[in-house]
Amino acid sequence: MQPLSIAGKEFHSRLFLGTGKFGSLTQMRDAVLASGSELVTVALKRMDLETDTDGMVVSLQHPGINLLPNTSGARNAKEAVFAAQLAREALETNWLKLEIHPDPKYLLPDARETLKATEELAKLGFVVLPYIHADPVLCKQLEDAGTAAVMPLGSPIGSNKGLKTADFLEIIIEQSKVPVVIDAGIGTPSHAAAAMEMGADAVLVNTAIAVAGDPVAMARAFSLSVEAGRIAYEAKLATPIKHAVASSPLTAFLHD
Amino acid sequence: MQPLSIAGKEFHSRLFLGTGKFGSLTQMRDAVLASGSELVTVALKRMDLETDTDGMVVSLQHPGINLLPNTSGARNAKEAVFAAQLAREALETNWLKLEIHPDPKYLLPDARETLKATEELAKLGFVVLPYIHADPVLCKQLEDAGTAAVMPLGSPIGSNKGLKTADFLEIIIEQSKVPVVIDAGIGTPSHAAAAMEMGADAVLVNTAIAVAGDPVAMARAFSLSVEAGRIAYEAKLATPIKHAVASSPLTAFLHD
Amino acid sequence: MQPLSIAGKEFHSRLFLGTGKFGSLTQMRDAVLASGSELVTVALKRMDLETDTDGMVVSLQHPGINLLPNTSGARNAKEAVFAAQLAREALETNWLKLEIHPDPKYLLPDARETLKATEELAKLGFVVLPYIHADPVLCKQLEDAGTAAVMPLGSPIGSNKGLKTADFLEIIIEQSKVPVVIDAGIGTPSHAAAAMEMGADAVLVNTAIAVAGDPVAMARAFSLSVEAGRIAYEAKLATPIKHAVASSPLTAFLHD
Amino acid sequence: MQPLSIAGKEFHSRLFLGTGKFGSLTQMRDAVLASGSELVTVALKRMDLETDTDGMVVSLQHPGINLLPNTSGARNAKEAVFAAQLAREALETNWLKLEIHPDPKYLLPDARETLKATEELAKLGFVVLPYIHADPVLCKQLEDAGTAAVMPLGSPIGSNKGLKTADFLEIIIEQSKVPVVIDAGIGTPSHAAAAMEMGADAVLVNTAIAVAGDPVAMARAFSLSVEAGRIAYEAKLATPIKHAVASSPLTAFLHD
Repeated sequence: MQPLSIAGKEFHSRLFLGTGKFGSLTQMRDAVLASGSELVTVALKRMDLETDTDGMVVSLQHPGINLLPNTSGARNAKEAVFAAQLAREALETNWLKLEIHPDPKYLLPDARETLKATEELAKLGFVVLPYIHADPVLCKQLEDAGTAAVMPLGSPIGSNKGLKTADFLEIIIEQSKVPVVIDAGIGTPSHAAAAMEMGADAVLVNTAIAVAGDPVAMARAFSLSVEAGRIAYEAKLATPIKHAVASSPLTAFLHD
Repeated sequence: MQPLSIAGKEFHSRLFLGTGKFGSLTQMRDAVLASGSELVTVALKRMDLETDTDGMVVSLQHPGINLLPNTSGARNAKEAVFAAQLAREALETNWLKLEIHPDPKYLLPDARETLKATEELAKLGFVVLPYIHADPVLCKQLEDAGTAAVMPLGSPIGSNKGLKTADFLEIIIEQSKVPVVIDAGIGTPSHAAAAMEMGADAVLVNTAIAVAGDPVAMARAFSLSVEAGRIAYEAKLATPIKHAVASSPLTAFLHD
Repeated sequence: MQPLSIAGKEFHSRLFLGTGKFGSLTQMRDAVLASGSELVTVALKRMDLETDTDGMVVSLQHPGINLLPNTSGARNAKEAVFAAQLAREALETNWLKLEIHPDPKYLLPDARETLKATEELAKLGFVVLPYIHADPVLCKQLEDAGTAAVMPLGSPIGSNKGLKTADFLEIIIEQSKVPVVIDAGIGTPSHAAAAMEMGADAVLVNTAIAVAGDPVAMARAFSLSVEAGRIAYEAKLATPIKHAVASSPLTAFLHD
Repeated sequence: MQPLSIAGKEFHSRLFLGTGKFGSLTQMRDAVLASGSELVTVALKRMDLETDTDGMVVSLQHPGINLLPNTSGARNAKEAVFAAQLAREALETNWLKLEIHPDPKYLLPDARETLKATEELAKLGFVVLPYIHADPVLCKQLEDAGTAAVMPLGSPIGSNKGLKTADFLEIIIEQSKVPVVIDAGIGTPSHAAAAMEMGADAVLVNTAIAVAGDPVAMARAFSLSVEAGRIAYEAKLATPIKHAVASSPLTAFLHD
């Protein structure tokens, strides 16, 4: 399996994790370790940043794990840029998962504000990974704006519905010059494998692991399926055909 | 991962392989070994059975691999029973993948003849694994007839279309007292993972591995994805929901 | 729109209706008339047959409507043949919708018993329309047995899930020499249109109309959609393509 | 069927047509008339506008037909606004289908430029109907900008793949205060019916009619299916259920 490179940094795992909704910090940490993930996103909370006693961050201190602060809760570019700067200072990383969602019900991303914030943050030296709709035109504009990767959604966030946007993800993957990370909607290991089979560079999973019956085992299942999907992509899948012949040659062994 | 038991025999891999369409016997053998499969189906060819020099069989002689002769080419119960007896004598196994398909174009299974042959073969002491349509009523009748497992198709054989019959497979899995092995149509590791996530006991894959760009790597990918799907099933997946909330708590960190 | 011929009888509507689950006989009758259907299936009830005062049958007496008694409730061929003979005597029609479903939970059809009953009933002079799984091999056997049409299911009965069996329905339609009527699972006018677009000869709808907010209006909607789907089939649909060009010619009107 | 109102104008047909790809102007005109459409979009061509001898426009002069000039070919807001002004002068209508697609291969819409142009055009007094990605956040922003309707795509333009964006269209329909017209990707009458069943206010169809074997018959089929889908929406469809009971009551007529 080829390593993945984002902004010059190499990753051997193509599974990124989110840290929300877990039952406890210990469970979250165990799931992250079981997943083999090297990039883990954390939501900012001002209070914790101020008091410098964020249990979340402490529990993720581990040589193989890189933190990816996100701007969840930001409703426009201005709020997101402000949050990004707080995060950089507090967590000492210029990596950023950019999330701007003005709608509190579905948490869908705002194309215009995300593009504006990406332009600003790239100029400020951030490594920006924006969460976006599966919009191929927007992806190209984000590239021009200096994004480090694009993170199109597979289906509405938290819905576990999988790759409903597959037709658009295919176009994005075909056209993109930066890594494509599928974010939101991946509800099962088979969804994650399917994303990798399509040629996505990585996937980000959170809800499906955090709310599973056994989150640590589920993290391991996702790890295996992402690896399976990537190997399959590199090994080249056969093309589906309309109606095919059997794999067993129809030897007329009884009829000759 | 729990082991699978069929007719009293335990399997640690839940991936069964077919042996058709490979580029060479060496490639086939390497793919089987890479897959970790413990049950491999081979089509009968009368000539090879008579001369006892079947390269296929020789190349699969390995302590961890069990042969599962199939009756591919049989057009009715009578032909299938005859072929089964030849296979038992030649390969010294009473395990049998029962395939009866009168239609040479789509190779779809014949419900009535398969049921009749299963009844006869079970009485003759065979361990029968019949390839069938995803027909829940037929599955119960096969149970009554003494089948060791049922092998419903996911989609037309060789089509690589995945689990088109999912709504019926769910009913079969819910009702079955014997193991359910999904056969035919599985074209990608993500399809295999999805079958396992649904609660299938195993999957049989052939075309998707044999005609991949790199069959040995693809066999490894399927092995990982079957394990991923099974672990996910045992770890209990979250239920998909219509429109969900985000995994990051919407901390109003900027708005308080 | 070409007329449909079954067993020598011409139909101008390709929408068949079921009569279960309506709120009242009046509502049922109004929906049938609004649908324009010429073939309406009714479940047998021994008592009503004996007393000859079946409100169901009386309410459907209309010059354009033909009754199609069904054997719903029969668990095997023997019961179905007996019920068929009762129906022929009581309703003075040799047309029969053959339904054999041993499983009271999902009401899925029994392939073997349906085939056996069709053979017997055809010899007894019945015009048999059997409800079956979308099993192409069974369809050919029913043809050989003298069936007048085949009625494969689109998805589990009452599920309103549409054409989940589409891959198999396509094969059935391609191979069939008798009319193909899609039965069970059609939940919306768009499902019915899709069945007709594929080349099905007719559809049978019940639950989706009977339990709609306004069953009479819904019957009209199905009537229109079946006509739309049939016209589209006859007018030849364009083939879906992977990624297509726009319908507006890209006149470089601003760029020359 | 309730009439549709856009910018104060009432429409009795909820099917809008495009005029590209037809074999001849006569065929196009006949198809438009057969469809019953009252709103027909035409691409601008500078030359025709200048010489005032546009056969397209002449052939669509009919009391029931309103022209909807589109800006197909515009690559940004500036070009689109310029084209809109030309169109208003030439065709004497302030209605405009706004299309901005910088990518000549897939012709996917540009969210940022479309929003910018809508703001400008609304101020200039245009009735703007923008073609957009199925992006719920953008739809709300377009409302704020004064759009008369939103036209989200169902799948990539010209692909005939139907409502691949259904999960997002549902959110858009739930949230929108302006009419929602599904544009692009509708390849069959069943797709159009499904859009209407979801609660879309109208659909725009072009390729599927223009390249059909018989475009005039296909236009009629779409007209019927749009009506069917709308009636079904107003009559309230039954909710799909996981596994349902039969519509025929299981009268134990043989078992008592």
